[in-house]
Amino acid sequence: MMTSGKQYKVGVLGATGTVGQRFIALLAEHPFFVIHALGASQRSAGKPYIKAVNWKQTQPIPSAVREMIVQECKPEHFQDCAVVFSGLDADVAGDIEQSFRLAELAVFSNAKNYRRDPHVPLIVPLVNTSHYSMIPQQRALHQPPLKKGFIVTNANCSTTGVVVPLAALERAFGPIESCIITTMQAISGAGYPGVPSLDIVDNIVPYISGEEEKIEWETLKILGGIVQGDDGLKTFDMHTKQPLRISASCNRVPVIEGHTECVSVRFARRPPPSPQQVREALQAYTSEAYTIGCPSAPRHTVYVHEEPDRPQPRLDRDYQSGAGVCVGRVRQCRVLDIKFVVLANNVAIGAATSSIINAEYAVLKGIVGGQA
Amino acid sequence: MMTSGKQYKVGVLGATGTVGQRFIALLAEHPFFVIHALGASQRSAGKPYIKAVNWKQTQPIPSAVREMIVQECKPEHFQDCAVVFSGLDADVAGDIEQSFRLAELAVFSNAKNYRRDPHVPLIVPLVNTSHYSMIPQQRALHQPPLKKGFIVTNANCSTTGVVVPLAALERAFGPIESCIITTMQAISGAGYPGVPSLDIVDNIVPYISGEEEKIEWETLKILGGIVQGDDGLKTFDMHTKQPLRISASCNRVPVIEGHTECVSVRFARRPPPSPQQVREALQAYTSEAYTIGCPSAPRHTVYVHEEPDRPQPRLDRDYQSGAGVCVGRVRQCRVLDIKFVVLANNVAIGAATSSIINAEYAVLKGIVGGQA
Amino acid sequence: MMTSGKQYKVGVLGATGTVGQRFIALLAEHPFFVIHALGASQRSAGKPYIKAVNWKQTQPIPSAVREMIVQECKPEHFQDCAVVFSGLDADVAGDIEQSFRLAELAVFSNAKNYRRDPHVPLIVPLVNTSHYSMIPQQRALHQPPLKKGFIVTNANCSTTGVVVPLAALERAFGPIESCIITTMQAISGAGYPGVPSLDIVDNIVPYISGEEEKIEWETLKILGGIVQGDDGLKTFDMHTKQPLRISASCNRVPVIEGHTECVSVRFARRPPPSPQQVREALQAYTSEAYTIGCPSAPRHTVYVHEEPDRPQPRLDRDYQSGAGVCVGRVRQCRVLDIKFVVLANNVAIGAATSSIINAEYAVLKGIVGGQA
Amino acid sequence: MMTSGKQYKVGVLGATGTVGQRFIALLAEHPFFVIHALGASQRSAGKPYIKAVNWKQTQPIPSAVREMIVQECKPEHFQDCAVVFSGLDADVAGDIEQSFRLAELAVFSNAKNYRRDPHVPLIVPLVNTSHYSMIPQQRALHQPPLKKGFIVTNANCSTTGVVVPLAALERAFGPIESCIITTMQAISGAGYPGVPSLDIVDNIVPYISGEEEKIEWETLKILGGIVQGDDGLKTFDMHTKQPLRISASCNRVPVIEGHTECVSVRFARRPPPSPQQVREALQAYTSEAYTIGCPSAPRHTVYVHEEPDRPQPRLDRDYQSGAGVCVGRVRQCRVLDIKFVVLANNVAIGAATSSIINAEYAVLKGIVGGQA
Ligand SMILES: NC(=O)c1ccc[n+]([C@@H]2O[C@H](COP(=O)([O-])OP(=O)(O)OC[C@H]3O[C@@H](n4cnc5c(N)ncnc54)[C@H](OP(=O)(O)O)[C@@H]3O)[C@@H](O)[C@H]2O)c1
Ligand SMILES: NC(=O)c1ccc[n+]([C@@H]2O[C@H](COP(=O)([O-])OP(=O)(O)OC[C@H]3O[C@@H](n4cnc5c(N)ncnc54)[C@H](OP(=O)(O)O)[C@@H]3O)[C@@H](O)[C@H]2O)c1
Repeated sequence: MMTSGKQYKVGVLGATGTVGQRFIALLAEHPFFVIHALGASQRSAGKPYIKAVNWKQTQPIPSAVREMIVQECKPEHFQDCAVVFSGLDADVAGDIEQSFRLAELAVFSNAKNYRRDPHVPLIVPLVNTSHYSMIPQQRALHQPPLKKGFIVTNANCSTTGVVVPLAALERAFGPIESCIITTMQAISGAGYPGVPSLDIVDNIVPYISGEEEKIEWETLKILGGIVQGDDGLKTFDMHTKQPLRISASCNRVPVIEGHTECVSVRFARRPPPSPQQVREALQAYTSEAYTIGCPSAPRHTVYVHEEPDRPQPRLDRDYQSGAGVCVGRVRQCRVLDIKFVVLANNVAIGAATSSIINAEYAVLKGIVGGQA
Repeated sequence: MMTSGKQYKVGVLGATGTVGQRFIALLAEHPFFVIHALGASQRSAGKPYIKAVNWKQTQPIPSAVREMIVQECKPEHFQDCAVVFSGLDADVAGDIEQSFRLAELAVFSNAKNYRRDPHVPLIVPLVNTSHYSMIPQQRALHQPPLKKGFIVTNANCSTTGVVVPLAALERAFGPIESCIITTMQAISGAGYPGVPSLDIVDNIVPYISGEEEKIEWETLKILGGIVQGDDGLKTFDMHTKQPLRISASCNRVPVIEGHTECVSVRFARRPPPSPQQVREALQAYTSEAYTIGCPSAPRHTVYVHEEPDRPQPRLDRDYQSGAGVCVGRVRQCRVLDIKFVVLANNVAIGAATSSIINAEYAVLKGIVGGQA
Repeated sequence: MMTSGKQYKVGVLGATGTVGQRFIALLAEHPFFVIHALGASQRSAGKPYIKAVNWKQTQPIPSAVREMIVQECKPEHFQDCAVVFSGLDADVAGDIEQSFRLAELAVFSNAKNYRRDPHVPLIVPLVNTSHYSMIPQQRALHQPPLKKGFIVTNANCSTTGVVVPLAALERAFGPIESCIITTMQAISGAGYPGVPSLDIVDNIVPYISGEEEKIEWETLKILGGIVQGDDGLKTFDMHTKQPLRISASCNRVPVIEGHTECVSVRFARRPPPSPQQVREALQAYTSEAYTIGCPSAPRHTVYVHEEPDRPQPRLDRDYQSGAGVCVGRVRQCRVLDIKFVVLANNVAIGAATSSIINAEYAVLKGIVGGQA
Repeated sequence: MMTSGKQYKVGVLGATGTVGQRFIALLAEHPFFVIHALGASQRSAGKPYIKAVNWKQTQPIPSAVREMIVQECKPEHFQDCAVVFSGLDADVAGDIEQSFRLAELAVFSNAKNYRRDPHVPLIVPLVNTSHYSMIPQQRALHQPPLKKGFIVTNANCSTTGVVVPLAALERAFGPIESCIITTMQAISGAGYPGVPSLDIVDNIVPYISGEEEKIEWETLKILGGIVQGDDGLKTFDMHTKQPLRISASCNRVPVIEGHTECVSVRFARRPPPSPQQVREALQAYTSEAYTIGCPSAPRHTVYVHEEPDRPQPRLDRDYQSGAGVCVGRVRQCRVLDIKFVVLANNVAIGAATSSIINAEYAVLKGIVGGQA
């Protein structure tokens, strides 16, 4: 394996936030990534990490970063990093990530800012690592053209949950035609301080700003292909060969971690697959990330529960450290074809873990150079 | 008005349970119903109500029932009651309610046992009071034929929430063709002790036994009509003139009271109504129960929220004492036509309040005699 | 009664906050107070109330204030108000309340700013209305001396809960010598947005900044007397005639409304009263506010529960609209003398209701003039 | 070390319960205990474990026990076990554990039945392993006398939390004279189904049957010594050399795991130690179980938090796999001497982990023979 023995220095932007803390917890035990630099706002810069952060993880702060000095998010502090992870606020992620790319750094971002960029792949690592093929064009068309810098984003947490089983189903049964999704999303999805407790104890908020649009749009980019025009330029086809209509309804619920989603799908193919065929296809689905050996990719991309009342967020969100997706209750839908329940850990595969697998993949494939 | 000044004695079966307690709280302030007899299991019978009940309401036990002796659920203890409300467990409701009907009592039941009976109307009082027309046949075909006894049921709590707006939409825009529903149901819907706290704190259970089938079946009976065969016999048509396909996914969430439901509908009529037309139709919808003066029927059958993040169970479940239904987020659905969020108080309009309005209606229409 | 028929115009400062909203809900149904003016920050000023507020109460916004324009918190907008209630943030309450007093307005404040002022009475209306005797001196010593303006504060919500039963016990059995209190405080006590949900779902925070000091200090001022020095000046004696040692431990718990407190006390008198004597003394305790007819004062100042597992916040916080205090589990303490559990509604008697009863008392006693 | 390489077969009684499941999760990874037999009620007996159990842990069922057949709790099925752990219901634990002891088995029990037995040590392994000295007498006085059989119990979960820091303080500063404790206990402490969700969502229950008595009594047995009478018989002295008065108030709170306790203590010694001295003594405290090498004993017996708002159950309950105790907010108490907050994982050190360390200790000390 390419990485044998080799270590890669990585940086974390937004290191004090909810996603940033998860990055740090995960990277502290990583086989080949080594945390080298931490970035956050001016409020935090200059302080040792333990003073800057309001640590909310259940494991203690990894000793390697406790006293590491937090930097401002400027490329000069991250020049030695082969990989830069970003858990930045969308308010600032746009400019900062751009400046890092310009400094020839490889940026793996959780922010939404570049997800709709026509040259930035939106990669859920259990689904569409093939979209890395867009990177050369992203570098070439950049002003000025870049040698090593690029931005890769991963999807919104609620998109991730649904796109994994949909990808599995399309691989097995061909295009999906329509899909209705109702989410029940954890409070950690809103960061910290995030959702006021007065809004969510003994309550549900049937609305999350911008969330439904994200699911409806991002899913098309991720499940779609890349086409090459007559001018040689590649574009994301947004699943237009076989239009896919998606309708999402998003709810915030009093759960700490783990987004639960009720999904109904209609296949283009008639007759549609049976629930049993769907179960088998989901269980059999494997990701290229796992196959090529990304250490954080889960063995079970989709774990299919047979019990009638699973998956449940509290019991299932930490299965495989939250790196896979759990599906249960696969059954017929009287309106579309098949319905089921998905659970995805919004902070793990829905955020930090996706970025890390994406970076592992880029390392293993030689897309990230490494200034070793 | 028929009832002016007249008081009607009523009995409550299952008086110590979650629904039974709500009956008692509501009836204690009723303009013309007077609690006369309370029934529960042998464990409770013979005790004063205050000793028999594990009172869980936020108002104190009404003084009129504190010392009332709980009876076994035998018709002889309820002979003076013009109306008998039942909040019995499904385990025992079948036999007990039958024995009460046989004793010429008018039974208004929350239990599921007779909902699928071909002669028992399943009445959501804000929707299908017209189904009272089945009562004469129910009495006539009973062995032996009855003069006054009958059973009326109301719907399952999650059915009630969805059937009210669907009825409003069908009245305004003609038949609905298909409907996908995802519920987020309160723990009080499972009675007491009901849902163990270890199952629901920081969690969601994406399954409620039998619930999806209830919504999918009951809705058809309620929204359907009554047809008369060549033999003169009436039957419920189960909405077969225009088949209606319903698909429900039911979830238990950590909310005490108030079921929230995300609903997508497709109309038969093309083009479908716009979101604004839907909003207006919902807002304009009135029930016959309110029109003829049932005191517990809500002025706003459907309250339509304009705010983007409403209805919410904690804030909206007590509006109009929980007797109406709240709808919000009416908008286009990319797969079906229109989607929206419904909130219904499962213990009020979803249970006790429905029975009470049904009985008020029966009194006002002279269907219940009253042994005054 | 002095107020018969007469209406008093009142203003509410901080009208958009958690306490402010409760003021408005309560005042909308008040027999003699009429909401005349609303004040909040510049963010809110100039908007109709319904646009300025993020209404979080379970009842709808009272129609009388929906369209009322929110003002900046300047005295000129409140000149016609006989009474001004303040639910202002402590950050700004100091200056604003002072400017209102200077404008000869009667201010009833929930903020902590003037609670330790040697001329401002800290009045829990179920306990120490006698401290109104400090008002003439407050006016006289003000620079410049005032004719009508004054400030009265009520206590911190957790102080209120404990001081009512302590007052009852001191009235019956003489001085208390020491008292250990552990609180379990509702999230609404921190205002809105207040406690982040990530901090409190499935959790307890065993610390509330400044809260323990407030209980330990305020209780002494409230339960203490007023003494007159040789110079004729009155001072609060801080319970020094018989020193009272109080030790408080404060916790935030995932409860929406209602502070629960476990209290152990030791009496000076030996032998101490028995649990049964304590129960009787608590039950018998009446407030002068109730006796002279304050309409918001509760009939049961202290409601004593006999059940072993009460009071509970969800079930008991709305008893008497939250205007009284509930006590339960009165029993022997093996270390001090007697221990018990108190429940007080932090937003009602712990905040808005106290201010309102204080103002009712001032009106009935002629302390507030009324510009009628 | 005595155990090097050697494996010990163990059985688990009540293997399907809350504590039993935790036993299984912990034992599945144990260095020298191997699960050999599982026992539960007749309802479960004869079924493979996976069918008998309603598994509620966040890790999957260990593969080694998935298909193991659950037995009735009869000694013949456990004859090969060097150690038998019991997580039985108190209703049945008395007779079953007695029959196991009689069959010469070593029983480590969580049930309360034998905690008050004058010959059964009540051992919190971080505190009083010296009480193992009672075992020979327990065997000798049994009718008939036993060679190998015995029963050791561990403490109630809320006792465990408080007794560890009290032991540390007594070791450093001599006897404690009095102690007031208020607990906020997790729902998992009541087993499954345990606390109904309707009782605890948005609520506190200020009462747990029998719990206060357990804390007040068990603490004396654990912190006390063993004295030998003139007749040569040993008895537990219940801390009578220096009487210790304990007063506990117990509350159930909506937290899944981890009991939080607010503790105030008064030392016999005058002047009492300072908060800083207390902090140091707690931090320095080590258990014999750790010193002699029990693999499940925590390195930090007591972890002392410096942050003002810790420990918190959600963040701290899994530190050291829940095997230690966390203390925070050490400060002066105005009534007694010192107060602080304790957090103990009720299912780990409060139950299964204590039994396991007790058994490890017994193995390492040769008290348990092992039929190897
Ligand atoms: N919550 C309780 O249980 C409780 C109990 C006892 C006492 N208290 C005390 O009562 C007070 C209010 O508490 P809360 O919980 O209601 O807080 P909150 O929800 O945060 O409300 C604060 C209010 O102050 C206003 N405000 C903030 N800055 C202002 C400015 N510069 N000028 C004018 N108005 C300004 C806000 O108006 P905008 O909306 O315009 O920002 C809002 O109306 C505090 O002093 C608190 O300690 C609270
Ligand atoms: N939960 C805690 O935090 C905690 C802490 C300290 C001590 N404890 C004590 O530990 C014990 C277990 O508590 P838990 O919370 O685990 O209770 P639980 O969840 O109710 O489990 C009870 C167990 O007892 C078994 N059982 C019941 N009746 C039986 C019978 N007739 N014969 C044989 N087995 C029978 C059950 O088996 P089936 O599944 O076959 O019914 C189940 O395995 C109790 O004594 C409790 O007081 C609990």
